[in-house]
Amino acid sequence: MTSDETAVAAANLAFYRALETRDLSAMDQVWLHDESVGCVHPGWHRLNGWSEVRRSWENIFANARRWKVAFEGVRIHVLENVAWVTGVELLTLSGADADDDPARMQATNIFTRRDGVWRLVHHHGSAFATETAEEDEPIN
Amino acid sequence: MTSDETAVAAANLAFYRALETRDLSAMDQVWLHDESVGCVHPGWHRLNGWSEVRRSWENIFANARRWKVAFEGVRIHVLENVAWVTGVELLTLSGADADDDPARMQATNIFTRRDGVWRLVHHHGSAFATETAEEDEPIN
Repeated sequence: MTSDETAVAAANLAFYRALETRDLSAMDQVWLHDESVGCVHPGWHRLNGWSEVRRSWENIFANARRWKVAFEGVRIHVLENVAWVTGVELLTLSGADADDDPARMQATNIFTRRDGVWRLVHHHGSAFATETAEEDEPIN
Repeated sequence: MTSDETAVAAANLAFYRALETRDLSAMDQVWLHDESVGCVHPGWHRLNGWSEVRRSWENIFANARRWKVAFEGVRIHVLENVAWVTGVELLTLSGADADDDPARMQATNIFTRRDGVWRLVHHHGSAFATETAEEDEPIN
């Protein structure tokens, strides 16, 4: 990994740590605070601007059950002051049986660097079928 | 719109035109051809690299029914040589009744500029519930 990729990986990890710990002030640190940011929660329409996005995290943290969050299959791309990270979020609800499969979400996270700090500007998460195998054909 | 945004909008439109016309050679023109590109079709795992991504379009164009494609709620962001476009894809199957709602997909498209030309490097499409209203709470 380049040093840029390492810094982006750390920013991405901070996002998932904030998600797991349901820590709104940590989420405040992760995101850029302006009208340009966007967020698509799984199955949802896009939220526009930091105030809408922040409110959604506030609601999620207030209402959702506790969970463990992992992030797999990470690919990191950096070009100048923009980075995008893709991978699979694994959410395991607290109290789930050891046999229970975690919920799996495909994620695309876009970061921009301002004054040397990478901030999240777009998050797109979506459910996907775990039974899809390499040989199946996607239907668009 | 800035001239950069106009150029990105044109590249994004070319992607949806290629999708609507099921034109693989047009799709070839839209995408960057290297191992870094990625594509998440709705409900699917991420495809990595141009050869996998191209094969998926080949399969989709061979198997899917004809459709009309529109793209709404477009937001375009450009920073240096990276751009990201978000919006809602509306797919109307050919022969659908006028009353039939189109399928709606949230999309995140990332482009990079090389030698002055914007190429698609990442596409993430996902279904979303049309009944979600602004006052509902997303559950992550």
